[in-house]
Amino acid sequence: MGGDFGPHSIVQASIACLAEYPSLHLVLVGQAPLIEDLIAHSPGVDRARLHVEHAGEVIAMDERPAQALRGKADSSMRVALELLRDGRAQACVSAGNTGALMALSRYVLKTLPGIDRPAMVTAVPTRTGCCHLLDLGANVDCSAEQLYQFAVMGAVAAEALGVVRPRVALLNVGTEEVKGNQQVKLAASLLQQASGLNYIGFVEGDGLYRGDADVVVCDGFVGNILLKSSEGLATMIAARIELLFRRNLVSRLAGLLAMPVLRRLRTELAPAQHNGASLLGLQGIVVKSHGSAGADGFKSAIRRALREIGDNLPQRLHGRLEGRLL
Amino acid sequence: MGGDFGPHSIVQASIACLAEYPSLHLVLVGQAPLIEDLIAHSPGVDRARLHVEHAGEVIAMDERPAQALRGKADSSMRVALELLRDGRAQACVSAGNTGALMALSRYVLKTLPGIDRPAMVTAVPTRTGCCHLLDLGANVDCSAEQLYQFAVMGAVAAEALGVVRPRVALLNVGTEEVKGNQQVKLAASLLQQASGLNYIGFVEGDGLYRGDADVVVCDGFVGNILLKSSEGLATMIAARIELLFRRNLVSRLAGLLAMPVLRRLRTELAPAQHNGASLLGLQGIVVKSHGSAGADGFKSAIRRALREIGDNLPQRLHGRLEGRLL
Repeated sequence: MGGDFGPHSIVQASIACLAEYPSLHLVLVGQAPLIEDLIAHSPGVDRARLHVEHAGEVIAMDERPAQALRGKADSSMRVALELLRDGRAQACVSAGNTGALMALSRYVLKTLPGIDRPAMVTAVPTRTGCCHLLDLGANVDCSAEQLYQFAVMGAVAAEALGVVRPRVALLNVGTEEVKGNQQVKLAASLLQQASGLNYIGFVEGDGLYRGDADVVVCDGFVGNILLKSSEGLATMIAARIELLFRRNLVSRLAGLLAMPVLRRLRTELAPAQHNGASLLGLQGIVVKSHGSAGADGFKSAIRRALREIGDNLPQRLHGRLEGRLL
Repeated sequence: MGGDFGPHSIVQASIACLAEYPSLHLVLVGQAPLIEDLIAHSPGVDRARLHVEHAGEVIAMDERPAQALRGKADSSMRVALELLRDGRAQACVSAGNTGALMALSRYVLKTLPGIDRPAMVTAVPTRTGCCHLLDLGANVDCSAEQLYQFAVMGAVAAEALGVVRPRVALLNVGTEEVKGNQQVKLAASLLQQASGLNYIGFVEGDGLYRGDADVVVCDGFVGNILLKSSEGLATMIAARIELLFRRNLVSRLAGLLAMPVLRRLRTELAPAQHNGASLLGLQGIVVKSHGSAGADGFKSAIRRALREIGDNLPQRLHGRLEGRLL
């Protein structure tokens, strides 16, 4: 029921994914009459693989996480997470309120042993490939221990995606040892002592995009602002280029030739919007689709969940965390 | 003596600025033999307006601020600030160690009454014009009161540059009141009560580039990472576009036509590198040139200092702060 476009684009994405993955089963959780009505408008849906689970309440996009936790036992988000907890689903995908999803996930699913709080991670494009950035906003204040846990989780998740000995770095305002706030300095000393982790030290904002690390760790406040400002900057650059290309006949011609290139770039540069982000560290797979994602974005989030089911990500994390955490 | 290129590009920029501004007098502070040697290689310099002040010591780019403060009474940075304090100069421009410049400025010049710590500010391009972003790394941990002071200083500095009733916002992970960390929430309640300030609430990373505010306030950790990651992203986009434009004959043609546009964009998007940043809240004008700035960047920093002298910025700040601070 969440996201800026509500169930409309979610139903659309679900039907498209069912056609794409013949073994996929989906449960749509929310206001059944509304969802059924949307499905009825799409002919040829394989209803044997598309189930609707009614949930009477909806968590608003601006609702406090505490409020979502205490009230609304019948919210679509909570019911979906309970399906996951009860083994009736293998992953949960939501475009709803991030804070509420984080709080409800922790409450319903619980974190893995040794993990205080889950972290949100996504892949950010860099000059040499991509970088797994976490946390992206699930935790606004983080202790050094939490940053340490994020580093371990990020490394394991990157390994699951095929990165060999991922280079793990802490995001900081300088690369020298004396730089940064107390949490970052403390986390650095924890990571220096960690065995089995390829910790390479501090990385700055520009180093992230230069591809200096495979996993970059920061608190959720910094990560969220970095990601959203990057999206904003990429959009601004794209808009500015379009405008410049419209100025005269020569630039129009150049623009005509350049537009496909620029359009692809724009898509690449908004990874959270297009690929979704994972909540790592939970006893279950939870993928957050960007609130402003349309059907394409939500499809990517479903695909991300499918990949994590295939990778057995929570079990893999569990196994690897045991040896590495303090 | 500071910056990645040392005195070479600084001397070059200084000589160019002397030619550009006939009433400008410059004092170059640092190792006199080295500087004199560099000047000697440039013919036709008006030495009546170019003075060299010897300072035997240099603060390294990775030196701790505390170390720069306690030792090195004869560092070029400190001697330059003392010239300013003693009225022998009207502004100080440095490409050196930011933390040391901040610490030494506070110690030698002192802050304005009511200001705990100076903030570093620069103009960031947005979709509708530009936005004055502070702090950019001078203060990694900030209290709500400091964020409040930054907001007031940023507003006054924007007004000095001609912005009418600048819209002041706090950078946050969401625009709803419940979002953010403790300092940001507290700063918001201080700003809501402030009179004579056009406080518009929270702005997110993408809102900054959309042009939602004229002044955006954050702590130095977040500001530094936002600015550097933006520089890194802009560089990456430019490099990627260049590469895409080289793929085949058609894209090469498009690239040839598009390159001037893209090059200008790249310059616009690295404002700190090209325009310098000001330390606001001191009893004197201090401009920080980007460490990796060449002669062009340093020239822009000198121009920035000249503009602030013309605007009487510290006196103006002093006058306006009195009525606005708690």
